Amino acid sequence: MENSIQFARRIATIQPSFIREILKAADNDSVISFAGGLPNAEYFPDQALAELASNIMTERPQDVLQYGQTEGEIELRQHISDQYRLRHQIDVPVENILITNGSQQAFDLIGKVLLDEGDRVIIESPGYLGAIQSLMIYQPQFLPVAIEQNGLNLDAFETALSANPKLVYSVPNFQNPTGFSYDAETRETMASQIRNRPCLIIEDDPYGDIRFEGQPAPSFYHYLPEQTLLLGSFSKIIAPGLRVGWMVAPPAIMQKLIIAKQAADLHTSRLSQHLILAFLRDDRFEPHLQRLCNAYDQRCQLMGDKLDELFGSDVRRSRPQGGMFMWLEFAKQFDTMELFREASELGVVFVPGQPFYTDQDSNHCARLNFSCSSLNQIDQGLALLHQAYQKTT
Amino acid sequence: MENSIQFARRIATIQPSFIREILKAADNDSVISFAGGLPNAEYFPDQALAELASNIMTERPQDVLQYGQTEGEIELRQHISDQYRLRHQIDVPVENILITNGSQQAFDLIGKVLLDEGDRVIIESPGYLGAIQSLMIYQPQFLPVAIEQNGLNLDAFETALSANPKLVYSVPNFQNPTGFSYDAETRETMASQIRNRPCLIIEDDPYGDIRFEGQPAPSFYHYLPEQTLLLGSFSKIIAPGLRVGWMVAPPAIMQKLIIAKQAADLHTSRLSQHLILAFLRDDRFEPHLQRLCNAYDQRCQLMGDKLDELFGSDVRRSRPQGGMFMWLEFAKQFDTMELFREASELGVVFVPGQPFYTDQDSNHCARLNFSCSSLNQIDQGLALLHQAYQKTT
Repeated sequence: MENSIQFARRIATIQPSFIREILKAADNDSVISFAGGLPNAEYFPDQALAELASNIMTERPQDVLQYGQTEGEIELRQHISDQYRLRHQIDVPVENILITNGSQQAFDLIGKVLLDEGDRVIIESPGYLGAIQSLMIYQPQFLPVAIEQNGLNLDAFETALSANPKLVYSVPNFQNPTGFSYDAETRETMASQIRNRPCLIIEDDPYGDIRFEGQPAPSFYHYLPEQTLLLGSFSKIIAPGLRVGWMVAPPAIMQKLIIAKQAADLHTSRLSQHLILAFLRDDRFEPHLQRLCNAYDQRCQLMGDKLDELFGSDVRRSRPQGGMFMWLEFAKQFDTMELFREASELGVVFVPGQPFYTDQDSNHCARLNFSCSSLNQIDQGLALLHQAYQKTT
Repeated sequence: MENSIQFARRIATIQPSFIREILKAADNDSVISFAGGLPNAEYFPDQALAELASNIMTERPQDVLQYGQTEGEIELRQHISDQYRLRHQIDVPVENILITNGSQQAFDLIGKVLLDEGDRVIIESPGYLGAIQSLMIYQPQFLPVAIEQNGLNLDAFETALSANPKLVYSVPNFQNPTGFSYDAETRETMASQIRNRPCLIIEDDPYGDIRFEGQPAPSFYHYLPEQTLLLGSFSKIIAPGLRVGWMVAPPAIMQKLIIAKQAADLHTSRLSQHLILAFLRDDRFEPHLQRLCNAYDQRCQLMGDKLDELFGSDVRRSRPQGGMFMWLEFAKQFDTMELFREASELGVVFVPGQPFYTDQDSNHCARLNFSCSSLNQIDQGLALLHQAYQKTT
């Protein structure tokens, strides 16, 4: 009987994520949501994609419909390699690139290939839940290290490294949930701390191309190519529904990742891969990306200005130079879960800070997404949030 | 350093599959390949799909481009549920259907959710390697049970059940590699043997709709809905490159499968899902399926007739009523790996029997795929195979 079936230990105690529940609550057109992590659908390049989808299916159906290589479409991998050279001045051989179903699949493959129960993994605190929950299935021990305005706290990182972690998970550009970015000095120091240890750094970079201010710092891959698992995604700059991302890994690890990917789903949708590739090669791609960055920049500016105006010194907020998220720390020590409940009754939602921590109570924080609301919604939503704040505190 | 990184135990000793190596060898236009498991690209409905892809992207870009539900697109799940009722007279609630990246992903999710190291899994012998290799990552103990013309050997199955397996893996229609189908009596007996044990049966049915002879027997789900994990795929009847399959599971298990799927890749490509759905609803789908069945029927017939003519009593072969594979047992006890080497020099390849067994030497067998060659290639390829046979024995 179904009831007497024992689940595997790795999954027996895992519950659906709290954030997933919040997102369900927010799936309601009358609610203004700063809760999600969605790109703004208004900026999807749908006309270009419609035209390109039709072309691909007509001109090269065999490249889309038959079984493909586990590693992914060679032309797409080549394009990614070329972009690393052109945009980031790093040399990433095509053979080291594996196409995945979004970055999310990279977390699962990394866990599967590298983590035994009890292995240690350094994570950012607060950190990105999607990665943490995916790795959690492989039952590691997480070592949270505080993330600050310029990256991980380096003393805490050194201490955590002395516990011999196998992996370090980081989102160095426009981090989720804080919007913080690691500066070059922090990256270089971390790289030198990790170098020659039996430890890999996962550099998760879904937001790097959505920069609207400042200059990019070098990738961890620049400092430490043999110990970096570099993750990229087209979800934020093109469209998440197509589920295409990639990872870069050193050859010995790539060999195992390919075995794991083959066991997991053989390969990623070739239609999705070719559609992404066609758009990347299209003249419309660069203007699209520029338009997207401008739109998010406007929203981020407005959200920041409005928060400063409404909350003044009651709130300390991050100042993202790109990405999709802003992080709030309220001066008062109160539970933002209370604020969430009050706010959702007024018609605005966000994610309270607590779920982003695995080890401590940090109740007075909140993550606000600015990418998928209109300017009007940001204006109205923050006014409602302020009303809720006044009621709660 | 990369070299000192320890891989997880589950993957440390797994090597790339032998069949994958064979398929690479066969990826050469001058070789006639009976080795693959590919559908015939000539019968891909590419024109219909090109037209439908463009329509979908134009008419409902939001349903394709934004993040979607982990469970899959509700309309596709509803369609699958409807088809089970109409075609198979079984009642499969929509909530019990999870869309996966081909059936391959179902194996991985099942392993992840149900298997602890050392758990026992009954498999068919010879059996489908893709499933076995995917489950192997979760380190179960496999209990092979001989598959015969009408399904598993029931005595051996009873004995294997006494070892308390958690899962039984079966391909009851047009099995891979044998082409055998379970008859209704075998299914019913197996269901009664499993009933009320803490054991689930994986009913993997990628080929069921490619029937060109005989009547279908009831699904295991018909006898044992609460203990059946029923797997389906659009790879064989529409196109594998889109990577869309599904699984049916009882609610308590579905809840864990959704958590695992979310951790694995959030959801399957929505473009792939909507394109499949549009074609399933299109007037061109039924004629396409009929045409495909006729084409495979012709090939299967020709392969059988030609084998009988060339090899006579030197070979005993299966008589598939559908699917894509034919199984050969040579009367002489010789190693078909030798035959493979000789044959590939002459320009024809197949898969020797050995890799389909996990526990025994059965060297005198071979799997021949009939779906993806032309009639001419079957004719020529078997003549070459016979030449190689005469040289080898």
